[in-house]
Amino acid sequence: MSALDKLLRPRSVAVVGASADPAKTSGRPVAYLRKHGFQGSIYPVNPKASEIDGLRCYPDIRSLPQAPDVAIVVLGAERTQQAVRELSAIGTGAAIVLASGYSESGEEGARRQQALREAAGAMRILGPNTIGLVNLTDRVTLSASGALEIDDLQPGAVGLVSQSGGILGALLSRAAARGVGLSKLISTSNEADLELADFVDALADDPATRVIALYVESIRHPAKFRAAARKARAAGKPVVAFKIGRSESGARAAASHTGALAGADAMYDALFEDAGVIRAQTFSDLLDIPAALAHARKLPGRRVAILTSTGGAGTLVADCLGLAGFELPAPDDATGAALRALQPGTPAALDRNPIDVTLAGLQPELLRGAIRILLDSGSYDALVVIVGSSGVAQPELMAGALKDTLAGATKPVMAYISPHAPRAAEVLGRYGIPAFHTPEGVSAAMAAMWQAQARVEADNTALPNAGLPDGLELAEGGSLDEAQAKALFARFGVPGVKEIVVRDEAQAAQAAAALGPRVVLKLLSRHITHKSDVGGVAVNVAQEDVPARLRQMREDVLRHTGDTPCAFLVQEMVTGAAEVIVGLHRDPLGSAILLGMGGVVAELVRDTTLLMLPEDGTGLSPAQVMAGLRRLKTWPLLDGYRGRERADVPALVHAVVAFSRMAGALGDRLIEAEINPLFVRPAGQGVCAADGVAVLQNRPN
Amino acid sequence: MSALDKLLRPRSVAVVGASADPAKTSGRPVAYLRKHGFQGSIYPVNPKASEIDGLRCYPDIRSLPQAPDVAIVVLGAERTQQAVRELSAIGTGAAIVLASGYSESGEEGARRQQALREAAGAMRILGPNTIGLVNLTDRVTLSASGALEIDDLQPGAVGLVSQSGGILGALLSRAAARGVGLSKLISTSNEADLELADFVDALADDPATRVIALYVESIRHPAKFRAAARKARAAGKPVVAFKIGRSESGARAAASHTGALAGADAMYDALFEDAGVIRAQTFSDLLDIPAALAHARKLPGRRVAILTSTGGAGTLVADCLGLAGFELPAPDDATGAALRALQPGTPAALDRNPIDVTLAGLQPELLRGAIRILLDSGSYDALVVIVGSSGVAQPELMAGALKDTLAGATKPVMAYISPHAPRAAEVLGRYGIPAFHTPEGVSAAMAAMWQAQARVEADNTALPNAGLPDGLELAEGGSLDEAQAKALFARFGVPGVKEIVVRDEAQAAQAAAALGPRVVLKLLSRHITHKSDVGGVAVNVAQEDVPARLRQMREDVLRHTGDTPCAFLVQEMVTGAAEVIVGLHRDPLGSAILLGMGGVVAELVRDTTLLMLPEDGTGLSPAQVMAGLRRLKTWPLLDGYRGRERADVPALVHAVVAFSRMAGALGDRLIEAEINPLFVRPAGQGVCAADGVAVLQNRPN
Repeated sequence: MSALDKLLRPRSVAVVGASADPAKTSGRPVAYLRKHGFQGSIYPVNPKASEIDGLRCYPDIRSLPQAPDVAIVVLGAERTQQAVRELSAIGTGAAIVLASGYSESGEEGARRQQALREAAGAMRILGPNTIGLVNLTDRVTLSASGALEIDDLQPGAVGLVSQSGGILGALLSRAAARGVGLSKLISTSNEADLELADFVDALADDPATRVIALYVESIRHPAKFRAAARKARAAGKPVVAFKIGRSESGARAAASHTGALAGADAMYDALFEDAGVIRAQTFSDLLDIPAALAHARKLPGRRVAILTSTGGAGTLVADCLGLAGFELPAPDDATGAALRALQPGTPAALDRNPIDVTLAGLQPELLRGAIRILLDSGSYDALVVIVGSSGVAQPELMAGALKDTLAGATKPVMAYISPHAPRAAEVLGRYGIPAFHTPEGVSAAMAAMWQAQARVEADNTALPNAGLPDGLELAEGGSLDEAQAKALFARFGVPGVKEIVVRDEAQAAQAAAALGPRVVLKLLSRHITHKSDVGGVAVNVAQEDVPARLRQMREDVLRHTGDTPCAFLVQEMVTGAAEVIVGLHRDPLGSAILLGMGGVVAELVRDTTLLMLPEDGTGLSPAQVMAGLRRLKTWPLLDGYRGRERADVPALVHAVVAFSRMAGALGDRLIEAEINPLFVRPAGQGVCAADGVAVLQNRPN
Repeated sequence: MSALDKLLRPRSVAVVGASADPAKTSGRPVAYLRKHGFQGSIYPVNPKASEIDGLRCYPDIRSLPQAPDVAIVVLGAERTQQAVRELSAIGTGAAIVLASGYSESGEEGARRQQALREAAGAMRILGPNTIGLVNLTDRVTLSASGALEIDDLQPGAVGLVSQSGGILGALLSRAAARGVGLSKLISTSNEADLELADFVDALADDPATRVIALYVESIRHPAKFRAAARKARAAGKPVVAFKIGRSESGARAAASHTGALAGADAMYDALFEDAGVIRAQTFSDLLDIPAALAHARKLPGRRVAILTSTGGAGTLVADCLGLAGFELPAPDDATGAALRALQPGTPAALDRNPIDVTLAGLQPELLRGAIRILLDSGSYDALVVIVGSSGVAQPELMAGALKDTLAGATKPVMAYISPHAPRAAEVLGRYGIPAFHTPEGVSAAMAAMWQAQARVEADNTALPNAGLPDGLELAEGGSLDEAQAKALFARFGVPGVKEIVVRDEAQAAQAAAALGPRVVLKLLSRHITHKSDVGGVAVNVAQEDVPARLRQMREDVLRHTGDTPCAFLVQEMVTGAAEVIVGLHRDPLGSAILLGMGGVVAELVRDTTLLMLPEDGTGLSPAQVMAGLRRLKTWPLLDGYRGRERADVPALVHAVVAFSRMAGALGDRLIEAEINPLFVRPAGQGVCAADGVAVLQNRPN
């Protein structure tokens, strides 16, 4: 049995610092373990008591009859470290440290946390500053959270991991009120040792858990997180995450040009996308979406039937589902006839969608019949039932009808509660029907079901390691100049524009003669990156004007920088091509390729997307790049919009894959890389990098 | 006393078709009137009963002792019409018709509704198919809504008008659970007579109502609605609207080019913007925002203090507020010192924001002290308090501390309830502190307070009627050709590019000689609007190539259309200018000017905005146009972005104002008008319309 297994399913629990007063925080763990029916041994440790709630109390850790699987330490920070050292010495599996005053409270706290980690030795630590862990499947409550005052905790299929203890308590009480059953709840808080990813990994193996919900403040070890999330996905368990700190990560990303283009919080989007994690957009979604996914039913399509017992609310939910891209077709002839046959002669609007049974009267038999017909109908992929004011007076009415008809049904069924009817929501939840208080919750949950489905199909695109091309030698370090950068990109398979490096007017005239009637002339420098700011770019220069233009550029650059430039680039003039930006974005969360349409308008509207690179040094797959391109709002520009010529998308995909393999192969040696613009010519004519930036790490001497 | 006054505050109410059985829908109105303490006379009308609940029952309408101020008709549709006729005959002020089976149920129902309207004569009608009206201020419940089973309805300052009866009931029960006090609730439903706008107008005059909340399915008479909303705004009463049907109105708008550019549901945005209505983006916002606005406090700035009694939730709310553009500064030195002095020696994090009192223990005196300090601090414009698990066990704790300190405070105070703690929310609501269950609700409400404030300042831009320019004669009807359209625009003050109409190669050569070394050549036609689709546009043509190019264009157009064109335009070639699209959008909701950046990228990302035209035939004000331009994501392109030359924004504003005055002056005669593109040259160099479309109504013979 691993230490993590012991922590999640202990047979014995010591409570170090247990108080006999259940009103005190230190009195709660023992009280809650007993209240919620823990089946193993409980060892309170407190030198001042001989017995707590009828249990023998031990004066100190050494006196314990055996090394416990888990110890909850409810001492203050000053005494915790010694207790942890002693627990480790006797072979305790894991310790849960509730005390605060560690890394959350400044530098001294961080030092204290490091000391705690060292004192633990081989023993695992949850916390410090944690509210603990609750295993509802096995009735193990290793926590002092006041939320455990609830008498009747409902075990279920949602495993919840939170980096905030307070939020965990809030979610526990909200889930109970909604009838959403939970399997395990874990607050990782300071993560001195065990972290979010450890529990994602463990819950992927937990038979009771069907969906994993995460409240995320920051991902400590992204590679570990990605591996754990992928494992959960492979096990068929969707992972849903709500992430805070969205405003700050925006500020951080803005440090580089590629970062600024990526926009606020986009790296988390890329990380979650890559790891197959569904991102909850609002805090409510963090319960709403798992509640819907906890039921094994799959959403086979986007056609939703709405059965309503109240006017208005059906239309409201239909509107939200419509905005989220779902279809609400009227019943087909057979379904309509079957619905009408339920209550011949009544004025009920049974043959439209929403299907309104208000006027037919709320009879259980009618509801059961209508639900059965809709679940059997070939016209619908899912059913949403609306609970009206009957849900206040008769909370069991709709819930009972649904319960009777759901057995054997394979379509997802959800409920929207229109009035304030908390009891109806709870009853429905307990019967396994996710019940929502907001129409946006219904559509978010339905969209997440669709997304969870889609992911499974798309995930077969891994590529072998691309490796370094033969003969590649990276002589240079630091900023490369534009020609060097494009030469580097070309070695990995990204073609550049035709260009010739020149030093004077005569060479420039010769180069222009070779490159066409009109050319681009640029300053070539390893140090000046914003060439146009210093007068170092001239486009559409006629061949015969090139020497004069070079002379002028030399003077302009001298005036701006104080240095006389000694190298220039003469490039072919590319016209009639679309412009794309491709960049490498380095971030503590990982590395990603930024894709965006070029040009200032696309820049202003932040029409970009980030694609996470695999950690193993391989690159992106063509399918990943295509998916990224299709996410761009301006994708139609490449795809023949309004009679335009279609761009050479295969060549573009090939170039981006090559760029990503370069990033993978060079790893940390490549600090920055950007192609802006990459010209994408019409179909069949290829792409070429028109400008490039690359910064390499200097070789160690 | 007007009929509407009588309806809202009746002294006598007849219930036609009243049942003695309060379990039946027809038995509810009398039961609810008595239960909720109606002070006037109640006249049940039913030939089968002599007494209902101790009240004398009248056999028919003619037997009533007086004409009632209001009659509630709870008969079926077949008997309602006769009752309405009789009620009108005896001089009843208004009838509330609950029956369904009218316009909501097809053509026959629509005819029945028309007959009902006629039967009512001078008497006003609310409904049919309505759930009725509730005046909580005066304890008048003219409704059969099951939501009135609630015992203790809290009167307050939010007036609610809903076009759906079921939603009204849902909002009533949700408001009661939240402790949000309501003044009047009205369900207008089929709006055979009285409509949404009538009640907005009436609530603007209602002393008990401080904020008006609307659940909108469609606006029947936009001009009336705009006038009523403006009246409410002028009375200092914010109007908040949630609108459904968002997916469909998108489809409708896509019929015209300008409409397609405007995007889904944008006309409602424009209408609400124009009328000063705050749009609720989610259904929950429709209660959350009015709850915050119901209190007279103003938000003087964007700096928010968060006081929390639970870890995690403070950070969550801070994150949402940060995303919404609010600032969360740490306490200034004096405020921090005052907070620390509250509890010297405790480890509470009192000098950061969120200000965390969790560890200091939840003592009422500490809470009161901290709240007072934050309300007095010059560092903050608003306060959000977070209620943690104490809110479950001691719902009064935070509420009591707030109640004690709020008297005299001028800053807005809101509460976020972290766990499921319904009682805490209700208590806070009743004490006048809006309490929210979602962090997004807090930020939406705060943002709406800021918006409500900003509107008041900006509203002083009305212009006198521009009128027709002297000597304007509109000889033409139908589609104008491009030259005619631009000539029309020019008469109203929108300059066009220099251009000359030509018929053959010789005229074209002459025109090109006058217009510059490079020109634009276009087909000129009243019938072919997509000129480039038929080969009818050539740009950047060298002067000497013009005759040959014209010949080729003539052949291309002939090949595409089967007709030989006989007129062309030679235009000056404009370069170095930004491109803007300006269009007239006609919609059942009203007319609006569409503004957008030109070019295909801006089109793909729908970077457009709509500005409603006044109903009185005047145009937009320069301030309105500037506000619209600044809403464009690509606005920086005109404003000197990245060292670009600043565009001639004053000339652009002048041209859009002129275009809008043209639309106002021509009214219905102008069916379509669009300038695409309008070139905006660098500052000081003006604008010119490069292409134009106008469709006029044919003159009546």
